[in-house]
Amino acid sequence: MARPRTDIDAGREHLLDLAIELVEQRGGGALTMTELASMANTSPANLYRFFESKDAVVEAIAERWFQPKVAIMEEVLASDLPPRRKLYEFFARRFVRLRDSYNADPVSFAMYCELGEEHFELVRSYVDLGDHYLAEIIAEAMADGYFTGLTIDEALSLINQMVSVYCNIGAMGMVMPKLSEQKLARIVDAIFDGLSAQDRGAVGVKGLRAA
Amino acid sequence: MARPRTDIDAGREHLLDLAIELVEQRGGGALTMTELASMANTSPANLYRFFESKDAVVEAIAERWFQPKVAIMEEVLASDLPPRRKLYEFFARRFVRLRDSYNADPVSFAMYCELGEEHFELVRSYVDLGDHYLAEIIAEAMADGYFTGLTIDEALSLINQMVSVYCNIGAMGMVMPKLSEQKLARIVDAIFDGLSAQDRGAVGVKGLRAA
Repeated sequence: MARPRTDIDAGREHLLDLAIELVEQRGGGALTMTELASMANTSPANLYRFFESKDAVVEAIAERWFQPKVAIMEEVLASDLPPRRKLYEFFARRFVRLRDSYNADPVSFAMYCELGEEHFELVRSYVDLGDHYLAEIIAEAMADGYFTGLTIDEALSLINQMVSVYCNIGAMGMVMPKLSEQKLARIVDAIFDGLSAQDRGAVGVKGLRAA
Repeated sequence: MARPRTDIDAGREHLLDLAIELVEQRGGGALTMTELASMANTSPANLYRFFESKDAVVEAIAERWFQPKVAIMEEVLASDLPPRRKLYEFFARRFVRLRDSYNADPVSFAMYCELGEEHFELVRSYVDLGDHYLAEIIAEAMADGYFTGLTIDEALSLINQMVSVYCNIGAMGMVMPKLSEQKLARIVDAIFDGLSAQDRGAVGVKGLRAA
């Protein structure tokens, strides 16, 4: 409190850099306040002036990790692209960025997946934000006559499932060599040209025979 | 070798039951020949008469786990359903079975996911077999005029990606409450009605602007 706000901010940023280094190299399990204090050549007590808990450190890591993805989503939303292209860019731009991170350092990438699984409550708010933006694109597409007979929530859930491997970092790592912008574009086309609640009669869910 | 084949087989089945119990309760990490021998009240040396290595035990667990799924795939392939319905049943029947296992015991389900990740070389041959069967359904669909301009391999990869959450057990567990046969049916319809290499012009991959 005695120090100017900027010093606290600078201290937080420096500690956050160290915490990220620690997580990227050794995983979220290695992140403790004691370990972080030791890396920063300071005492745990001093550390608590910058972060009130380990959870606050993890929250700051998540914020820094998600911030560029949120910026991409907002940029695509604000663009005047047609809804189909918007949906593509919404997933493709983040996918390209994630693939670059993966290729640069697959081990760090896996560490973030692990951290995200352990702290899913933090990831949840970003997933919800992504869904909020996606719902806007779906509403624009519906205004153009797509997704006939589906509610926004139904279309949202189906689209998330169909592009899951392009945005769920846990699923992505396992199949990265098989993913491409070209394939994502085909999937987005299939979503726009094929996704509706019209019963084409062939699948006929009512007649489902489960083995 | 001195014993009749049936005794060896019965011994293997009993040991496999114990190994599965061990893995379902404590995970693949807990599975060792020493631990398994102890559960069976026998010596590790005796155990090696039935399984030549821990890997052989894991292989037998995988075989038992995959066998009913392979039977489902073969049953669907042999049916005279039209290709769209075949594709749906191909994924839906296995999904329903997997969801039942998950609901019956989510912890055991997670243990199988973990074991599969650790021994992906064993899973690989079943994935390849699934792809082989899927390619047959795709060829039937193509004969009916679907998937225009795509090769079988391209269609195969796209379909696997679009239904990933319904067949990849690692991805499935995280989103199980959001999965349903009805949604899978909509996705299969979108695959049949929307998936082709025709350029609808809207996505225009050539013009991709990655952030």
